[in-house]
Amino acid sequence: MENFIAYNPTTLHFGKNVLTMLGSTLKEYGNRVLLVYGKGSVKKSGLYDMIMGVLKTQGFEICEYGGIKPNPVIEDVDAAAAIGRQHNVNVILAVGGGSVIDSVKIISVTIPVNHGGWEFFGGEAKPVTAIPFIAIPTLAATGSEMNPFAVVSNHAQGQKSAFGSPLTFPKHSFLDPALTLTVPKNHTAYGIADLIAHCFEAWFGVGESTLTDRFVISIIREAMDYGPKLLGDLHNYEYRERIMFSATMALNGMTMYGRSTGDWGVHSAGHCLSLLYDVPHGASLTIVFPAWMRHFKGQIGNRIAQLGSSLFDEPLTADESIDRIEAFFKSLGCPTRLSDMNIPGDLYQPIFESMIHSKVNGGNMKMKEEDYEKLIRLYL
Amino acid sequence: MENFIAYNPTTLHFGKNVLTMLGSTLKEYGNRVLLVYGKGSVKKSGLYDMIMGVLKTQGFEICEYGGIKPNPVIEDVDAAAAIGRQHNVNVILAVGGGSVIDSVKIISVTIPVNHGGWEFFGGEAKPVTAIPFIAIPTLAATGSEMNPFAVVSNHAQGQKSAFGSPLTFPKHSFLDPALTLTVPKNHTAYGIADLIAHCFEAWFGVGESTLTDRFVISIIREAMDYGPKLLGDLHNYEYRERIMFSATMALNGMTMYGRSTGDWGVHSAGHCLSLLYDVPHGASLTIVFPAWMRHFKGQIGNRIAQLGSSLFDEPLTADESIDRIEAFFKSLGCPTRLSDMNIPGDLYQPIFESMIHSKVNGGNMKMKEEDYEKLIRLYL
Repeated sequence: MENFIAYNPTTLHFGKNVLTMLGSTLKEYGNRVLLVYGKGSVKKSGLYDMIMGVLKTQGFEICEYGGIKPNPVIEDVDAAAAIGRQHNVNVILAVGGGSVIDSVKIISVTIPVNHGGWEFFGGEAKPVTAIPFIAIPTLAATGSEMNPFAVVSNHAQGQKSAFGSPLTFPKHSFLDPALTLTVPKNHTAYGIADLIAHCFEAWFGVGESTLTDRFVISIIREAMDYGPKLLGDLHNYEYRERIMFSATMALNGMTMYGRSTGDWGVHSAGHCLSLLYDVPHGASLTIVFPAWMRHFKGQIGNRIAQLGSSLFDEPLTADESIDRIEAFFKSLGCPTRLSDMNIPGDLYQPIFESMIHSKVNGGNMKMKEEDYEKLIRLYL
Repeated sequence: MENFIAYNPTTLHFGKNVLTMLGSTLKEYGNRVLLVYGKGSVKKSGLYDMIMGVLKTQGFEICEYGGIKPNPVIEDVDAAAAIGRQHNVNVILAVGGGSVIDSVKIISVTIPVNHGGWEFFGGEAKPVTAIPFIAIPTLAATGSEMNPFAVVSNHAQGQKSAFGSPLTFPKHSFLDPALTLTVPKNHTAYGIADLIAHCFEAWFGVGESTLTDRFVISIIREAMDYGPKLLGDLHNYEYRERIMFSATMALNGMTMYGRSTGDWGVHSAGHCLSLLYDVPHGASLTIVFPAWMRHFKGQIGNRIAQLGSSLFDEPLTADESIDRIEAFFKSLGCPTRLSDMNIPGDLYQPIFESMIHSKVNGGNMKMKEEDYEKLIRLYL
């Protein structure tokens, strides 16, 4: 085991009708709220009206920023922060998927400062204070509701980068699985893939802990048992509940106990695909992960075989494990080659350049340009 | 799944030499420290001198209270709180096993008030503020280092009761498995049994979550795999590490996600044995749990069989499961009948009366006097 620090101050409210506590919880932080949401599904579903009803009835002053994109961009973060600053808000409410919650993390540290949010990503600026925020996820995928991490794109700089600080944990998150009942099939599948990929990134990190490995296998097996069931029955509350809970556990810190770092090279490579072709995050991971495992199987074949054997409950080689995992992703309807996404034109060269520009790398399995080359060939 | 709230603000520092960060962490809370410890093992081991060295070098004002008993009593809590109050301490340091950490939780809320600590247990008083405290556990067992719960005895009232509040989480806990290397074999075994029993109490609670069940089984299997190895090699750091980590996970909240309550009837019954005969906490649980399962197997036979089958990786009936679990406790060297503890005299009547007096009950499996009768017969 590697030394580790476990710290997660988020209060998670999970289950049916947990939003009944939203107003009183928000009030602990203030009465001027910035409401942030995405491209309209919260309006279609009626959630927006419900929340506005609660806030207005309870006397909150509300300003809002809608239109956060699925692969969120720094321009939206800065624009939302400007609104929050102008209205002197004392609490932020993030309603939506990981893109909205991630954006709000950066908004929360950008409101108190006089520069743009991107400066936090490169390390030019460090946050010293944050406006508290509360998350209401409407998608089970990123786990953003119980971690401090945010991934945001800067197209002007051609980068999609991650940031996290002890200041950027949600104070509270309200998880009602019923809010995910209307997520369409493809995004439900990408969410399942995303949570599994988060577990893989931990699994292939640095540091061994048999108990943490058991936790990781537990989460993946839960997703593998109930993910396909959910995809066959999208309006099943119980399956939604299991997947939502699994997604939160997959990236709330527990998969990292006893490790000094995850790998995250696959996420790093996947971000290039999202940046270039707007590939949904979860879909980018089901393309890159099989390729990444094939590329590195000479070095980590035992660990791959251990993963596959644990997941499928029979002794498997590394090759068999990769094939089975890839087949599972396919069975969810997720792409496993970039060609599955029907993107026209030359793909190799832009991806290669993007990976160089973004300095794609893993915390455990280090990559150089020759690795990029081989990796891209495996997912084209 | 039942609705649940996940909240655990403790910062856990786990691994080799984590105490190097103790001084700087304490300083965040103040410079007047109340140091609380037990009956001398911290002095024998040199840990006391090490900590005093750190505190003195770094300019802390120190007052101290030693002599917390293994089954901690309210008199020590009140006496320690008086010292802390007198010296106007702003932070408390708990060094020892669960008894010390539990005591410090009550000390932390008793220092700021003008009444004894016992008033919190019966609900006559509710804490509104607490002196922050930091824990350094020297025993892997109770999980007290990452939860808000305290169990303390009041012999004058013939009660051993539990208390917990959001105020009584440790701010930080420093877990260096090396500090447990000198724990003797019997107490090591009781600690392993205790952590397993904590998982059982969750397992038999109210609410079903397949993922949480997987977590619970993961923790117990880790303890069953490495507990016996540790007992055969007490100075093995790696085994100590695994058991210490497991003990923390067994009662930090995660086994309760998706449940509205654990059962805790076995703990409640076990407390009577500790109160009457000073039976070590873990030993009381290995006596009561097999009896409790036998008593309730008519109602929860399926759940017992599911537990046994998951732990031993083969299909088992409820009876077989209980036998195998009891045999496992025996293999650790733990008592499974009260007669194993060589306590002279009439046992039945005092235990029966103590159970009535303490209103022994479970959160899921309710008990009446006729249950007490049958239960006691099963563990005499």
